[in-house]
Amino acid sequence: MSPAVPPALSLDGATTRYGYLGPEGTFTQMALHAWGAARDAVHHPFGSVDAALGALRSGEIDAAMVPIENSVEGGVSATLDALASGEPLVVVGEVLVPITFVLAARPGMPLADVRAVGTHSHAWAQVRGWMGTHLPHAAYVPTLSTAAAAAGLSEDGSAAYDAAVCAPVAAANHGLEVLAEDIGDMSSAVTRFVLVAKPGTLPERTGADKTTLVLYQRDDHPGGLLELLEQFAVRGINMSRLESRPTKESMGRYCFSIDIEGHVLDERVGEALMGLKRVCAEVRFLGSYPRADGTEVRVSDSTTDESFTDARAWLHSLRGLPG
Amino acid sequence: MSPAVPPALSLDGATTRYGYLGPEGTFTQMALHAWGAARDAVHHPFGSVDAALGALRSGEIDAAMVPIENSVEGGVSATLDALASGEPLVVVGEVLVPITFVLAARPGMPLADVRAVGTHSHAWAQVRGWMGTHLPHAAYVPTLSTAAAAAGLSEDGSAAYDAAVCAPVAAANHGLEVLAEDIGDMSSAVTRFVLVAKPGTLPERTGADKTTLVLYQRDDHPGGLLELLEQFAVRGINMSRLESRPTKESMGRYCFSIDIEGHVLDERVGEALMGLKRVCAEVRFLGSYPRADGTEVRVSDSTTDESFTDARAWLHSLRGLPG
Amino acid sequence: MSPAVPPALSLDGATTRYGYLGPEGTFTQMALHAWGAARDAVHHPFGSVDAALGALRSGEIDAAMVPIENSVEGGVSATLDALASGEPLVVVGEVLVPITFVLAARPGMPLADVRAVGTHSHAWAQVRGWMGTHLPHAAYVPTLSTAAAAAGLSEDGSAAYDAAVCAPVAAANHGLEVLAEDIGDMSSAVTRFVLVAKPGTLPERTGADKTTLVLYQRDDHPGGLLELLEQFAVRGINMSRLESRPTKESMGRYCFSIDIEGHVLDERVGEALMGLKRVCAEVRFLGSYPRADGTEVRVSDSTTDESFTDARAWLHSLRGLPG
Amino acid sequence: MSPAVPPALSLDGATTRYGYLGPEGTFTQMALHAWGAARDAVHHPFGSVDAALGALRSGEIDAAMVPIENSVEGGVSATLDALASGEPLVVVGEVLVPITFVLAARPGMPLADVRAVGTHSHAWAQVRGWMGTHLPHAAYVPTLSTAAAAAGLSEDGSAAYDAAVCAPVAAANHGLEVLAEDIGDMSSAVTRFVLVAKPGTLPERTGADKTTLVLYQRDDHPGGLLELLEQFAVRGINMSRLESRPTKESMGRYCFSIDIEGHVLDERVGEALMGLKRVCAEVRFLGSYPRADGTEVRVSDSTTDESFTDARAWLHSLRGLPG
Repeated sequence: MSPAVPPALSLDGATTRYGYLGPEGTFTQMALHAWGAARDAVHHPFGSVDAALGALRSGEIDAAMVPIENSVEGGVSATLDALASGEPLVVVGEVLVPITFVLAARPGMPLADVRAVGTHSHAWAQVRGWMGTHLPHAAYVPTLSTAAAAAGLSEDGSAAYDAAVCAPVAAANHGLEVLAEDIGDMSSAVTRFVLVAKPGTLPERTGADKTTLVLYQRDDHPGGLLELLEQFAVRGINMSRLESRPTKESMGRYCFSIDIEGHVLDERVGEALMGLKRVCAEVRFLGSYPRADGTEVRVSDSTTDESFTDARAWLHSLRGLPG
Repeated sequence: MSPAVPPALSLDGATTRYGYLGPEGTFTQMALHAWGAARDAVHHPFGSVDAALGALRSGEIDAAMVPIENSVEGGVSATLDALASGEPLVVVGEVLVPITFVLAARPGMPLADVRAVGTHSHAWAQVRGWMGTHLPHAAYVPTLSTAAAAAGLSEDGSAAYDAAVCAPVAAANHGLEVLAEDIGDMSSAVTRFVLVAKPGTLPERTGADKTTLVLYQRDDHPGGLLELLEQFAVRGINMSRLESRPTKESMGRYCFSIDIEGHVLDERVGEALMGLKRVCAEVRFLGSYPRADGTEVRVSDSTTDESFTDARAWLHSLRGLPG
Repeated sequence: MSPAVPPALSLDGATTRYGYLGPEGTFTQMALHAWGAARDAVHHPFGSVDAALGALRSGEIDAAMVPIENSVEGGVSATLDALASGEPLVVVGEVLVPITFVLAARPGMPLADVRAVGTHSHAWAQVRGWMGTHLPHAAYVPTLSTAAAAAGLSEDGSAAYDAAVCAPVAAANHGLEVLAEDIGDMSSAVTRFVLVAKPGTLPERTGADKTTLVLYQRDDHPGGLLELLEQFAVRGINMSRLESRPTKESMGRYCFSIDIEGHVLDERVGEALMGLKRVCAEVRFLGSYPRADGTEVRVSDSTTDESFTDARAWLHSLRGLPG
Repeated sequence: MSPAVPPALSLDGATTRYGYLGPEGTFTQMALHAWGAARDAVHHPFGSVDAALGALRSGEIDAAMVPIENSVEGGVSATLDALASGEPLVVVGEVLVPITFVLAARPGMPLADVRAVGTHSHAWAQVRGWMGTHLPHAAYVPTLSTAAAAAGLSEDGSAAYDAAVCAPVAAANHGLEVLAEDIGDMSSAVTRFVLVAKPGTLPERTGADKTTLVLYQRDDHPGGLLELLEQFAVRGINMSRLESRPTKESMGRYCFSIDIEGHVLDERVGEALMGLKRVCAEVRFLGSYPRADGTEVRVSDSTTDESFTDARAWLHSLRGLPG
């Protein structure tokens, strides 16, 4: 499976300055490589999602690629929270990257001699099956990222482990030897990355779009979430992701980070957004953009743009207004 | 309690031709008397709701007063069905008439000599308590209307009963003597009448309005009615009347005759109507008009016209359109 | 189409005393004839639904056949209201009778000489198409029932009409000649009758059952009906009839007369009834009985009796109780 | 604010073996200290939530304290995922710990000389305001935990930073000097910890209880989550936490980790659990236990245990069963 390439590019040319969650050799860099328009541009790695999005907000870069879902690097919460508050940013595209891990070591190290393995805790969780079979006695040493695990081996030899679990590109970047490939327990693991930019660019409608929102409830009454979801249901809109995030004000107060199918220019999405705007304390619009997998949104007869237009013409006639 | 007089008159002047469900002396005529604008106009009685609305559709009259709810004359179904199909008509106002019954007989008849009582079966149901106490042995003779019961006594003496239960006005019209007043078991009984006209007149918004609709479901699936009601609930609209009526196509197929609070010019009502238009096989708009009781509609902060206008401006800004 | 005969008989033998809404010759008598167990029993006609159900309540009869839905005789409201209040009664079966009208007159009267036609207003509404074509100039004379129209012709010749619209059996009973058969505009018209008895008999489950309920809301808040319907929806129960009826306390207060698919012994129906009992001011159970059309209820996997039993065993294990 | 002490202790005595997410000096150890019954017992630190729960599953320890919500150590996802799959475990209690950070350094280091600060990235996010004001030029060095940052300073002086952001107890444990107290930007920050045990212990009902569940949808259709939430809404149950977690099978497939108000022994909770069991692919019951804050659950009249008992007795009478 190769990375899904987005059908439309929102930011083009070699002059666009791209940032990404580094260091070099992470899956995030692979996502940026998969973004066609960015191929000939300069890519700046940043030490954290906050740093990358901060550089975007300050104008240092024009777009940032960051992980948003099911990442092995733990980037999800950081991305969700960074987008949910602060100066507004929008998602202009997404990229799916299949996640494959290798076990890498300094050249000459045999697999049988590996006593300790370094990697990020999330990656460790995904290779536990392989480790149980092939290196049942190896100790686990947590590191700050999978790329950091690879880098540690390439440095001065002082690392507390002899092998690293990392992306293939990280092994290559650091001159390591690959002892085993594709060692993840879930062969279909994939991480979703989003390309973030400042508001002002609205990708065109393709019929296979997503819209990302953050909803803050007006108050925390029983059934509150149900009411928000009904704003989608009554307009036939499907939700493809829902995350609750603490608002940091107090324990038990949440906002909801949501992806829905459809584009803000779709009539049904527009009416749902207006409904949410009326009932929520705040609605943060985080962009409409083409789905990486290109799957078209299925729309029932009663929620097509045409059915909205017909209904509006009918209402105007009832009101004695020109259709 | 005197009849509630509507705050706004939609059809004025002595030149308007009014029809009503007759004969003279029914509560419907009382309702028409209570309609201010109709006081100096000519009133034509019709033998049935169908006849009155037929005359309206053919242009013979300009407006018709007919009972719609809780009538003692059984007029409800006839009115609902006549409005639900055929050439479109709209309600332009409503009148509430307190229902009071008298027991009337030919002059000289003592109460103690009453052996049989004639009236419409619905009226009989409403005076059963009084009859059980005061005339426990009187036989009941059904008649076609309460006014017909009074008329029967005034004719040639051949009526199969000696006293009639009817409206005070009917007793007066037919020269009968009132043996007992206000004999209804429910002192608060009231009937709601509507003034019907051809489409083209939309009464102004008063803030205390009602809208009447007939909804035909697209198909008869489980939860179908629930979906229709959610179109109101999600926009904070209260329903003040719901009647299901057979569509006459087959047993178990219904349409719904509904009154909601609010005016078609209200934003929340307009959006709900559009939603129904999209999901129903047919929506028949039967008018927006001032409530007879003048009770203002309570609207939550999230469904005021202003909240809709604000939400629309916000949506336009997201879409890059002028607010 | 012959009347659907119920698959199970709840009240048997020639010793059962049956009443019905008379007079003889109405469609209600036809319904009682179609009820197998009643064939050899004595049938007592009553002048009104109230009278028939009163006789049942007082023990004068054991069961009463009355119309409940789409009747040509206007019996629906009377039946719904009589069952919704007063001493409890239950429905133990239903019968569907196809409604066919004939035009009948005294022997010797040619169709061409008919100047006026007598019948009940509901029947008149159903033959209007035929009359427009065949007797466009005939006057309409309302009568108290279709059978009364036939009876009027057979009496002393003083009737204000020369022909009656009635059931075939009424024409035969009164020695009239049929001038035209099957003159109804809707060839599929059917009326649903119910056999009512005192509580104590619960017809067996057949898998093709109905349950009839009357629901009184605790208060009349917005979305109140929606809450009641959700008690059905959340247990996958379909509703086959909904009527709102005024509670007579004040204008705009309703109770709901409802038929649902399923039997009170079904787990999903039992749980829904308990849910309604908790949220309603009153729930009146009007019986579970086999559907006249024998259509089996379709039940989703998640609402079968087995799924309820499994879920209960699982809950008991969580609570540390024996399964 | 002192840690809220749970009102009822489920596991007692000095013989119980407790584990917790270490190392020593984390907020998790503070949570375990606050658990009354654990005060005289031995506490074993574990390197990860997985390790602690693994030791519990293997019988090495009897109970484990782990963070579940809003932690500064990133423990939430690890805990949610470890509880959501594998051999069943249950929560038997919860502890809330106010989160306060100190800036600590080796004795003798003046605040003005701090050039780099080490801490966990989540902690760094929570002290950013203070740092911007007091140490605007200090570099940030990420560490694996706040306790690890403190430990790094106490070791051989090779740490790449001169001060650590950590819990007061960690500074004390490692002989560090506190340069500034309570430097978190949110003074009300609090982390929720849960005490986990093997199934078999069900804490008593207190009227102020929580129940934790993991729900796996049967399929991923539109409105699927809405259906699950309706199982709570229709029984008047409030939800105090909702997290969606990827099921790891494929992108976009979620399970939901949920806290509701009430105890599995409450009638309304039991019925809701049965409803979920019927409609979900899997329901994992993670325990009912007293709320740390002792807030009693508010229950409406229609969802008390008594209303359920009354409704059940009524249903039994309808079915002809003994009440």
